[in-house]
Amino acid sequence: MKIVTLGEIMARFSTTAGNRLAQAEHFQVVYGGGEANVAISLANFGHEVAFASKVPENPLGEAVKRHLNSYGVSTEFLLKGGSRLGTYYMEAGVGERGAAVFFDRAGSSFAEMLEIEWELAEMFKGVDLFHISGIAPAVSLKWRELTLELVKAAKSAGCQISFDVNYRGKMWTQAECGAVIQTILPYVDYCSAGHMDALYLLGIPKAPEEISDKLVYYYEKMSALFPNIKLFYATKREVISSSHNKLTGHIWSKTDGIFTSKTHDITPIVDRVGGGDAFSGGVLHGLLSDWSLQKTIDFGTAASSLKHTIHGDTNQFSEKEVLDFARSGSGAIQR
Amino acid sequence: MKIVTLGEIMARFSTTAGNRLAQAEHFQVVYGGGEANVAISLANFGHEVAFASKVPENPLGEAVKRHLNSYGVSTEFLLKGGSRLGTYYMEAGVGERGAAVFFDRAGSSFAEMLEIEWELAEMFKGVDLFHISGIAPAVSLKWRELTLELVKAAKSAGCQISFDVNYRGKMWTQAECGAVIQTILPYVDYCSAGHMDALYLLGIPKAPEEISDKLVYYYEKMSALFPNIKLFYATKREVISSSHNKLTGHIWSKTDGIFTSKTHDITPIVDRVGGGDAFSGGVLHGLLSDWSLQKTIDFGTAASSLKHTIHGDTNQFSEKEVLDFARSGSGAIQR
Amino acid sequence: MKIVTLGEIMARFSTTAGNRLAQAEHFQVVYGGGEANVAISLANFGHEVAFASKVPENPLGEAVKRHLNSYGVSTEFLLKGGSRLGTYYMEAGVGERGAAVFFDRAGSSFAEMLEIEWELAEMFKGVDLFHISGIAPAVSLKWRELTLELVKAAKSAGCQISFDVNYRGKMWTQAECGAVIQTILPYVDYCSAGHMDALYLLGIPKAPEEISDKLVYYYEKMSALFPNIKLFYATKREVISSSHNKLTGHIWSKTDGIFTSKTHDITPIVDRVGGGDAFSGGVLHGLLSDWSLQKTIDFGTAASSLKHTIHGDTNQFSEKEVLDFARSGSGAIQR
Amino acid sequence: MKIVTLGEIMARFSTTAGNRLAQAEHFQVVYGGGEANVAISLANFGHEVAFASKVPENPLGEAVKRHLNSYGVSTEFLLKGGSRLGTYYMEAGVGERGAAVFFDRAGSSFAEMLEIEWELAEMFKGVDLFHISGIAPAVSLKWRELTLELVKAAKSAGCQISFDVNYRGKMWTQAECGAVIQTILPYVDYCSAGHMDALYLLGIPKAPEEISDKLVYYYEKMSALFPNIKLFYATKREVISSSHNKLTGHIWSKTDGIFTSKTHDITPIVDRVGGGDAFSGGVLHGLLSDWSLQKTIDFGTAASSLKHTIHGDTNQFSEKEVLDFARSGSGAIQR
Amino acid sequence: MKIVTLGEIMARFSTTAGNRLAQAEHFQVVYGGGEANVAISLANFGHEVAFASKVPENPLGEAVKRHLNSYGVSTEFLLKGGSRLGTYYMEAGVGERGAAVFFDRAGSSFAEMLEIEWELAEMFKGVDLFHISGIAPAVSLKWRELTLELVKAAKSAGCQISFDVNYRGKMWTQAECGAVIQTILPYVDYCSAGHMDALYLLGIPKAPEEISDKLVYYYEKMSALFPNIKLFYATKREVISSSHNKLTGHIWSKTDGIFTSKTHDITPIVDRVGGGDAFSGGVLHGLLSDWSLQKTIDFGTAASSLKHTIHGDTNQFSEKEVLDFARSGSGAIQR
Amino acid sequence: MKIVTLGEIMARFSTTAGNRLAQAEHFQVVYGGGEANVAISLANFGHEVAFASKVPENPLGEAVKRHLNSYGVSTEFLLKGGSRLGTYYMEAGVGERGAAVFFDRAGSSFAEMLEIEWELAEMFKGVDLFHISGIAPAVSLKWRELTLELVKAAKSAGCQISFDVNYRGKMWTQAECGAVIQTILPYVDYCSAGHMDALYLLGIPKAPEEISDKLVYYYEKMSALFPNIKLFYATKREVISSSHNKLTGHIWSKTDGIFTSKTHDITPIVDRVGGGDAFSGGVLHGLLSDWSLQKTIDFGTAASSLKHTIHGDTNQFSEKEVLDFARSGSGAIQR
Repeated sequence: MKIVTLGEIMARFSTTAGNRLAQAEHFQVVYGGGEANVAISLANFGHEVAFASKVPENPLGEAVKRHLNSYGVSTEFLLKGGSRLGTYYMEAGVGERGAAVFFDRAGSSFAEMLEIEWELAEMFKGVDLFHISGIAPAVSLKWRELTLELVKAAKSAGCQISFDVNYRGKMWTQAECGAVIQTILPYVDYCSAGHMDALYLLGIPKAPEEISDKLVYYYEKMSALFPNIKLFYATKREVISSSHNKLTGHIWSKTDGIFTSKTHDITPIVDRVGGGDAFSGGVLHGLLSDWSLQKTIDFGTAASSLKHTIHGDTNQFSEKEVLDFARSGSGAIQR
Repeated sequence: MKIVTLGEIMARFSTTAGNRLAQAEHFQVVYGGGEANVAISLANFGHEVAFASKVPENPLGEAVKRHLNSYGVSTEFLLKGGSRLGTYYMEAGVGERGAAVFFDRAGSSFAEMLEIEWELAEMFKGVDLFHISGIAPAVSLKWRELTLELVKAAKSAGCQISFDVNYRGKMWTQAECGAVIQTILPYVDYCSAGHMDALYLLGIPKAPEEISDKLVYYYEKMSALFPNIKLFYATKREVISSSHNKLTGHIWSKTDGIFTSKTHDITPIVDRVGGGDAFSGGVLHGLLSDWSLQKTIDFGTAASSLKHTIHGDTNQFSEKEVLDFARSGSGAIQR
Repeated sequence: MKIVTLGEIMARFSTTAGNRLAQAEHFQVVYGGGEANVAISLANFGHEVAFASKVPENPLGEAVKRHLNSYGVSTEFLLKGGSRLGTYYMEAGVGERGAAVFFDRAGSSFAEMLEIEWELAEMFKGVDLFHISGIAPAVSLKWRELTLELVKAAKSAGCQISFDVNYRGKMWTQAECGAVIQTILPYVDYCSAGHMDALYLLGIPKAPEEISDKLVYYYEKMSALFPNIKLFYATKREVISSSHNKLTGHIWSKTDGIFTSKTHDITPIVDRVGGGDAFSGGVLHGLLSDWSLQKTIDFGTAASSLKHTIHGDTNQFSEKEVLDFARSGSGAIQR
Repeated sequence: MKIVTLGEIMARFSTTAGNRLAQAEHFQVVYGGGEANVAISLANFGHEVAFASKVPENPLGEAVKRHLNSYGVSTEFLLKGGSRLGTYYMEAGVGERGAAVFFDRAGSSFAEMLEIEWELAEMFKGVDLFHISGIAPAVSLKWRELTLELVKAAKSAGCQISFDVNYRGKMWTQAECGAVIQTILPYVDYCSAGHMDALYLLGIPKAPEEISDKLVYYYEKMSALFPNIKLFYATKREVISSSHNKLTGHIWSKTDGIFTSKTHDITPIVDRVGGGDAFSGGVLHGLLSDWSLQKTIDFGTAASSLKHTIHGDTNQFSEKEVLDFARSGSGAIQR
Repeated sequence: MKIVTLGEIMARFSTTAGNRLAQAEHFQVVYGGGEANVAISLANFGHEVAFASKVPENPLGEAVKRHLNSYGVSTEFLLKGGSRLGTYYMEAGVGERGAAVFFDRAGSSFAEMLEIEWELAEMFKGVDLFHISGIAPAVSLKWRELTLELVKAAKSAGCQISFDVNYRGKMWTQAECGAVIQTILPYVDYCSAGHMDALYLLGIPKAPEEISDKLVYYYEKMSALFPNIKLFYATKREVISSSHNKLTGHIWSKTDGIFTSKTHDITPIVDRVGGGDAFSGGVLHGLLSDWSLQKTIDFGTAASSLKHTIHGDTNQFSEKEVLDFARSGSGAIQR
Repeated sequence: MKIVTLGEIMARFSTTAGNRLAQAEHFQVVYGGGEANVAISLANFGHEVAFASKVPENPLGEAVKRHLNSYGVSTEFLLKGGSRLGTYYMEAGVGERGAAVFFDRAGSSFAEMLEIEWELAEMFKGVDLFHISGIAPAVSLKWRELTLELVKAAKSAGCQISFDVNYRGKMWTQAECGAVIQTILPYVDYCSAGHMDALYLLGIPKAPEEISDKLVYYYEKMSALFPNIKLFYATKREVISSSHNKLTGHIWSKTDGIFTSKTHDITPIVDRVGGGDAFSGGVLHGLLSDWSLQKTIDFGTAASSLKHTIHGDTNQFSEKEVLDFARSGSGAIQR
């Protein structure tokens, strides 16, 4: 299948676990962003994927291009220009201590865009799926408009629309986010969203105590609001510590109801950044492959679990590796 | 508040976890010592702190100075001279395998001191708290006298005295230590000591089986011996493995009785050296800030838990970071 | 005691945990092989050990020689010549994700040997124990013959024979392996083998449900087939994840029955490669030292557990360190 | 322009300068090969380039693919299969001590190819230039045939043919090489060759003493033998030490005669592997860009000089960077 | 002596020599800026120094504080606040290839300052020397005013004024710079400036050919324009390559004329960033120490040469080390 | 041949070039000492060599043992015991800046020895050559006696005696050294000494100006004093900078006169520590191999030059590698 994802991509500077940023003499550098991470996942799974964004004409912009190209993601729509690449700094969490992140993303080439600079007709030609997240409209007031414009254009061009709500409290308020995504959701086919999004962004009332499967309740309510959305999916993450999470995936369709993956016991966690994107990438791959929803959610959750075991934002596993892991996941050596 | 701590500071040479000293081609170097670590903790928490010691006039002595200065600790009373910096080598423990440490500290500039080389009137002028530990008198016969001399001088100068028993079996016998600390304790206001110290250093008889809170029993007995001591505090450490400890803090005052922190589940442990000093630093900060004993013990134990998650002897967290951690400690990323 | 072990030794190229091979800019290099690892363990425990093999006349061959020599293993019988050193690549497992290994061992100097190139009379002169594993006959058709020839020659020379079945499914089928080891086992004194070997290589029928100690059942059956074998031993490994295993050792003798070690809870695992060889090395040391079987199995399992806590194939611990660990294993620092 | 290059690509394992292979605990890994390096250079200069080869279906094969893709080189014709990736090991030279290299390339997926596995019509469709070197026919007897077959097919499909003689004495004799390249040269348009190739591979008699520009003499003789060849080019390298070379480029055309670049004084040399390929890539870019021969040889020699200043086989500089360097090359910081 | 320096301080991210930014997986991080570097030099030489600037309230701001404190520089006037720390990226030059630098400094906490936020009376109280450079007024239009305001205030408070012209073509034009510094120079006592500054910033006509010592000519002309300036000084740098420079220092006073240091032959260059600041620091130390101008220029040039041999912006050498080096500089080991 | 060398061996802690000790977070660790380095050289050249010394019973002592064993040097006479391993710290020199070294060797296991602890009859049995240097008697007053005792015992046992004067000004005065070595030299067969030793240790008067080959003059004078010495040898080192030396070797025999090697131009220097020991090792190998003095001095000087190109004290090159280098030394790659 042919896929376009679009969003901001940033450089992440981090220390090795157990070392603080203010003390560091070296930073590890990786490049990532929600939509870029999904693009790479889908390319690893064999799809023809382009990632659209804007990065500066400097070595960091070039590094972004090489990063994407190395996984076979097309950078035909990766614009070069503007002021700078957004960056953020991260101190990995350990045990009870959570990760600490601070952003230096203002004034980035992407955030400063004032109009659609891509030739949309060309970009969406023959594209099966367009994926974008709720981070894009959060980067600037202008991007609230541009995101909607892109989604509409993609829809008109015949793409399926995939949207990951991905609410970030450091970027905007729930009210701001809610207002914006309600303009976007009427165009969406596949939506990654959870019960918090229902409650705080869409204003859906709290599920009554007596309802046993609350996620189904929220998905039904959201589906009533946006009947165009065919599928909702989300992970439930139980945070035992920074180094130990339990992860379960859920997918729900109007027609088939809810499907739940096995719960992955992830310990130790190497790097959880990009775990949600790996999940989305995995679920979208299942959907694009016409797999059953059970196989799809098992695959997506397995992909996300695998991502937690490697450094960087990027899920580097092939379809075969994810399937093998989903099947066995034993931790044994083969030799 | 204005604080002076005094003691030996050494270079620690260690390998990365999973590598043995005899095989290593590189050693990590950090500088630390009980009283120096407390000094840095207190400087991080906003106090005006000086660390007094003696280090050689060579690059390692200079490194010690920069280490302390970088955290804002004054080195006005860090003497330069003598033969060498004490060193020790450490192989980090992993799982069931404990850490292995061997010392090469004989003949250090500090240990070879034969008299008080600081101008005490100047050093203790305006100082609120003087902190020293039971390691100082253990380094030489001479230091048994010097420690007492220092404590008395500080007391006379109007400082509160903080003493951390910190018994080290590789340095002297329980009998030797007991004899010495009994000369010191009559001048002490705040004492970090546990039930083992009561039993084996102070000769307090074993608590009868029927007593439920044995720590209170021992603190009461110690308090009876040294009624000048206002507060005792200690951590209880449950060692599940080198990589997994549970840590609970206790503080007891004659007037208010016992206060207990929540139990921190520390796994994985990055580096436990300095964990006790971070605890003392945290507790002393609470006391100097006139916090409640409950808040004080929660803060001290949180500070100690945080220390276990970073490399080096030094607690690099600010008051705000420790308070945030004590409050949440969830292991979640904020973004 | 004087010991010879013989087999292939390879270079292992690996990434640090959390990084994939296809992304790596550096590989860690260690050298190892089942019989070489046993040789080093036994040398560490104080025996006079030689390792016989064939490696190329190039820097990797030289590195193998230095590796062995550094632990005091004699390389008098390490032949130089042939085409190349076998290599393999390994991505360490993390949590649920198992390690991934791929081999590049075809055409190695050892595998290409066509005849016995050692002067056997000299090599086995005064040797108490000859150790070899089921990997040697798996490397080539020729080596199925050569292995038997070596075992017979050692036996004739008066050596005790130690054999570790070590079945590797990537090298040959169970049928092939079974046929070959049945020619070897009649000469063996000490055999490392488990119930899977009994079932799938020796064709022993499955133990009836009602038998409580199934391992004893299989050992008795194997003993009936090969009454010359004095001892069988094996570990039972419970794989909770790649990072967490539980390990229990068992040893059985015809005369004394079964002995079982305590169960070691190994978490985190630093590197499990060589864990089985450390076990064999430890058990053989106990046998060569005339220890009780209980002490022997405790020692072997402790040695294996320790190996899991360090990088590389090689058990770097002395007899004293293993005994101390077996006794305490508390995870506490001594200082 | 559209370009295809074809040849073997290998993994290079090396130590950092000043460290020997037999002592190393880590190897740096880079991927490269003559034709692959030319492909990357040309892609960096803005051309549409595909690299054709065969690599194994394992992480090293995947790493090769990512390496090429990251520079925008198409891997549409990078076949996956066969046994292994060829490897070689290198100890960097320092000062008077030359680099030491040993190969472990036998049995590679590329070397074991027995027939053309690419769909040549598709591969050469619309291609302007096909580049291959004298290393390809050196890998096996079969490849002597296959190389000729490829060159003929490319010629028939309308490609210009670029050939780099690249004689490697460790792979075959001068006589063998000479015989083979004489079958290839009749199809070649652009040829990288020097006076040694003329003398020892093509049997051209030594230039008489009285001839002042001997390179022109040899190029004229070669041109007489292969009148189809439009251009010859080569560098002259003066080796002062491993760390210091002087490099001058020469290009000669039948119609325009000889052009010589400035002499680059390269010290220190970071990594000279791939220097010749960077030269070829630069010269070919000039030719494909219809630059003057003077500009072409200046560009090619500058590109080669730049390559010597970075690690790895790959020239990572853009056309603009090479032009800027050729112009200034001052060693000054711009800020 | 008591000194205040003031200016922007940034994080420098760089790769190791021979590696490009776009390929890097790690960046080295150092902190520096012209005035901060001078502050550290002077603190190393035994003065009481404060560095005034503004950095964000985040780990990078904290790292700046620790960096300065570690050398004993006071951060009493290091304001915390604003948006971000300015950063720049650098690829070290090698041989003929110059270093490549790109800046990401817009919107920094320092550059965004709109008014003097320091309590100047307090900051300049008892201060002997105030040092600032031409980079400060280049960061914003506002800073052109603020710099002048600071210089005037310092002068009024009785400080000597040290000014380093330090023209940066990437920040402003020669015309802009010239206009601004002509407002500042009337307050300056010690000025680091060269003949280029005379020609292009101050519009002094080119020295006639027949004048032998042109630098004296320019200094005399500048001195005529700004008779308040007691001393001018500059280095002459002969750039043989990025790895090899020759460096000579010159100092000129109205009363004593010109003094010239020996020429240092610097090869290899480890890191030349901060070389000019080390020179200024060294010269200012000589002036503050009332040394002869010959000793002063020898010391300053030696300090600068030493700086080229270590990583980072910071001259880490003590007065004694610089004097020893200036005296011997032989390259021999003492043991 | 069978050789014993004896002396102190220490751990060297160093930073990477361009980084200062006081700033370092990691130290590189290598083990070496004059006599140990000679032992390894001779073992690399194929001799049967034992190194005798005393090291502590701790991981550093164990590391020394493994270091020696890895090169095939016997540690049968490496005693374990005493307090500590001597250490020293080194900042590599760069360009004009010389290396900085400081020692922490007091109280080492070797230096504290009070009597001969080896069984000399056994140690010298069948030994052809005993090598020791002037560092051994410098470590303590006791060692001045012990060294002589060893030399006499070796002589009595029929060993040839090799002595390297190796005067270290940081350890003792010229007068002290001179007195001691004059007691040793009467037993010596091969002596590494230069004209400085003649002048300042042996009190030989300065050579008259008119004598052209002054080294011959001094060797003749020394030979007159100690007619038992068959050979003197030394290098002449021209120090252009820390990174660039020129090295020429000289050997002189009473019977055959002077022989001089080619001059090696060593730039860059990776690590010059151990360069003199590599020279002695090379010369001794030539003597033990009955090579001509010309071949011997060429080999020794080549070995020393090679040593300068690798990290660590240890010459890691084989006889063949040194011979190849002595022959070509071109700096070219072979491939």
